[in-house]
Amino acid sequence: MAVSLSKIASHVNGDLEQADPLLLIESVSGLQEAKANHLSFVSNRKYAKLLQYTNAGAVLVSRTAAVPNGLAVIRVDNPYVAFAKVQQLLHPTITESPHKDKWAYIDPTATVHVSCHIEAFAWVGPGAVIGARTKVEAHVRIGRNVIIGEDCRLLSHSVIRDDCQLGNRVILHPGVVIGADGFGFAPSAKGNVKIPHVGKVVIEDDVELGAHTCVDRGALSDTIVRRGVKTDNFVQFGHGVDIGEDCLFVAYSGVAGSSKVGKNAILAARSTVLGHLDVAEGTQIGACGVLTKNVKQPAKLSGFPAIAHGDWLRLNGAKRKIGELFARVRALEKRVLKR
Amino acid sequence: MAVSLSKIASHVNGDLEQADPLLLIESVSGLQEAKANHLSFVSNRKYAKLLQYTNAGAVLVSRTAAVPNGLAVIRVDNPYVAFAKVQQLLHPTITESPHKDKWAYIDPTATVHVSCHIEAFAWVGPGAVIGARTKVEAHVRIGRNVIIGEDCRLLSHSVIRDDCQLGNRVILHPGVVIGADGFGFAPSAKGNVKIPHVGKVVIEDDVELGAHTCVDRGALSDTIVRRGVKTDNFVQFGHGVDIGEDCLFVAYSGVAGSSKVGKNAILAARSTVLGHLDVAEGTQIGACGVLTKNVKQPAKLSGFPAIAHGDWLRLNGAKRKIGELFARVRALEKRVLKR
Amino acid sequence: MAVSLSKIASHVNGDLEQADPLLLIESVSGLQEAKANHLSFVSNRKYAKLLQYTNAGAVLVSRTAAVPNGLAVIRVDNPYVAFAKVQQLLHPTITESPHKDKWAYIDPTATVHVSCHIEAFAWVGPGAVIGARTKVEAHVRIGRNVIIGEDCRLLSHSVIRDDCQLGNRVILHPGVVIGADGFGFAPSAKGNVKIPHVGKVVIEDDVELGAHTCVDRGALSDTIVRRGVKTDNFVQFGHGVDIGEDCLFVAYSGVAGSSKVGKNAILAARSTVLGHLDVAEGTQIGACGVLTKNVKQPAKLSGFPAIAHGDWLRLNGAKRKIGELFARVRALEKRVLKR
Repeated sequence: MAVSLSKIASHVNGDLEQADPLLLIESVSGLQEAKANHLSFVSNRKYAKLLQYTNAGAVLVSRTAAVPNGLAVIRVDNPYVAFAKVQQLLHPTITESPHKDKWAYIDPTATVHVSCHIEAFAWVGPGAVIGARTKVEAHVRIGRNVIIGEDCRLLSHSVIRDDCQLGNRVILHPGVVIGADGFGFAPSAKGNVKIPHVGKVVIEDDVELGAHTCVDRGALSDTIVRRGVKTDNFVQFGHGVDIGEDCLFVAYSGVAGSSKVGKNAILAARSTVLGHLDVAEGTQIGACGVLTKNVKQPAKLSGFPAIAHGDWLRLNGAKRKIGELFARVRALEKRVLKR
Repeated sequence: MAVSLSKIASHVNGDLEQADPLLLIESVSGLQEAKANHLSFVSNRKYAKLLQYTNAGAVLVSRTAAVPNGLAVIRVDNPYVAFAKVQQLLHPTITESPHKDKWAYIDPTATVHVSCHIEAFAWVGPGAVIGARTKVEAHVRIGRNVIIGEDCRLLSHSVIRDDCQLGNRVILHPGVVIGADGFGFAPSAKGNVKIPHVGKVVIEDDVELGAHTCVDRGALSDTIVRRGVKTDNFVQFGHGVDIGEDCLFVAYSGVAGSSKVGKNAILAARSTVLGHLDVAEGTQIGACGVLTKNVKQPAKLSGFPAIAHGDWLRLNGAKRKIGELFARVRALEKRVLKR
Repeated sequence: MAVSLSKIASHVNGDLEQADPLLLIESVSGLQEAKANHLSFVSNRKYAKLLQYTNAGAVLVSRTAAVPNGLAVIRVDNPYVAFAKVQQLLHPTITESPHKDKWAYIDPTATVHVSCHIEAFAWVGPGAVIGARTKVEAHVRIGRNVIIGEDCRLLSHSVIRDDCQLGNRVILHPGVVIGADGFGFAPSAKGNVKIPHVGKVVIEDDVELGAHTCVDRGALSDTIVRRGVKTDNFVQFGHGVDIGEDCLFVAYSGVAGSSKVGKNAILAARSTVLGHLDVAEGTQIGACGVLTKNVKQPAKLSGFPAIAHGDWLRLNGAKRKIGELFARVRALEKRVLKR
């Protein structure tokens, strides 16, 4: 799909400079790989010096960027966001035509909107409700009384257990499990007694969950993933957590049971929020960090236990010199203690 | 489903005090959320002070707990276990009626008990045997010659590879993989040569495995997960491990190949037992701990390499003061070395 | 399946000593478990002393190993590789006969070689091409225009998204996800804007990916997993990475977006390569290590941030004595500062 520069500029609310508005753009590339029919972008100042060498047909740049003479650019408020939007324009999500495959199992008591696309081997349980234009791929299982909104994309092998709810425009990547039992057992002399998990999971609008992400149902209360949350693969939300709007979770990060994470928080890869904690909105946890206490003010935290990121960096630096410290103490001892 | 206090009391072997035995309970809630037709519970002394404010119809408390005047209670040996049992009473697992869906693939040489419930798109391979009342959900694949006991619940997308065995009352959550090949390759000049894994996996009675948990088959010997083991999501048991009875594994914890973990061990989130180790029964490993040596006596261990938890806490405390130590050494040097 | 010693010896390019070439071997066991019709092996010198006690019918040993009088051995260049090859001989992968199950969904525009084995509930999308003798198990979903080579084994619940490519002899264990969208969003005042991922994933020949491993598609360029790469379970390759030939990845290890890992690298369990890094061939990263910088020379690295493994060991040793250091400084202070 090829789109003219002028159409692209208007799509991203940008201004053309030194550009041929009719030039057709076929794809987006990095500055060094771009060809004459490609658009490129500079979202990080450190790549700006590459501008003079690029062969791109045009480049998305900030409102104030310095630009080589003769290089066609589109000036925008946020080149990275504009890049994302141009890609959406050039590569629109394929809209599937309405279809219920003859090999899809749809319980007679389920309500599937006429505009849905349901592939073979999808399984839709009793009482489930699926909204307009939602796509349900092969090998998806939707449990009893599940409610799913409009324009969702449930990719293959995603699972939604009984009674859980999804808002609109939710994307579940392959292997996502919504509403499995939380990990809760009461230890007794006769072994561990299973605690039934009777809360449900509520996934709000515009949430996108990466492959194999798990969101467990609560023991007593619901588990909530709020509007706009995005996760990478292998993310785990424990029973009864409440994940605030627009939070981002990188691969293998997780939140243990009953914790509440405020909006716009970012958890880096393999980071953890332990159970029963309250985490202020905007909190950021570095890779492998383990949060062990409530966070009252937004902060960037790292380490286990997580501390202020700057302190953690200093600590790491100091630790690396611990051998030197031993030597200096030994020298002092020689002088002072004559040993 | 509503159940009378007297029936609940007898179900948990408890004694009613200050209570109307005919009061109907509809659900269980926390002390602060509970309403007049709810039961609540105090399993942790620090919440006991909330007893005076609760609106619960009755509360599960210990045999010796102090209780406000007029508050209906059920005295039990272990309120948390009693809570679990009441939830089981109020929310019984739905027993599915016997059913073999017309779209279930069941190999003609498989033996499926007449009381089983097999959903559409389940796949049961040659020679497999499935015991009474076991539920096999959609998208489960049961390999060749697999043997499965009674009253198991194989949730959607669980996989049991050829020749593996499950006991009775086993629960596999979505995405559990039993009996994939272990990770074993012999390095050679021509690349890594695959070592066939010819051991099987044996899962004993009352095991429950969380979503996406993987139990690999052994290279030479079997992998064994013993009675009552429970795992959270994303747990990994490597080839040829032997996991003792009633062990608990929190999310992302794992045991590498050929290790043996004694009964009642607890592995916290992201903790690891490296390969070829022997771990005493009752051992506990803290979050992110990495066990690198055999454990002969039960102990609580943390860190990488895992050491006694108390030592690890002290070490962490000391490390946090390392900057101070540098300053103190510098001060000493100024005095002693005149620099 | 029983095979004679002479046939085994010739299969592994070995020389029989003190052995009956006609002896039939039924399986391979450890030295201590082996019986008269078993073969065993010594791949690690520390087990050589067990040779005198073994009941094995014969033992794979190195060309120069000392061997007890009367013990039948097969001398080979590499006993561990020979062990792997004997296991392959005794336990050949079952070759499935050509089959397209009547309940497999194969799009009319897909091209499936006549020799393939396609189980019920497999789903093959429009334009997909599948090469000779490839096995596609139940619940596999192969997306639009995917190209798959010969002799591949796609185990149940593996997923290959649109446009991705697999070479020959590729093994995908259950739950592998090839080509899900990478984790990429442009933060904006109106929430995080999804960046469409338009690169594909290319998996070269002889790659084997463990259960639930995820290989994300690139945003702009392709993600490449080169010939002979092997992964354990739960491994993650981010968008646009390039994984060199014959690399090994142990459970939960991962490579973040746009990084390039040279051939023959080994990532131990839970280790991480952060994004946008260049990692020299032959690099090894210890368990839980986090690589934060480019690696120019092959090295063994550990810790977070990853440093030379030897330094990390020394540092860990020193850290464990930090309490002692505090005491020594205190003693010095008493002397010097009179406090």
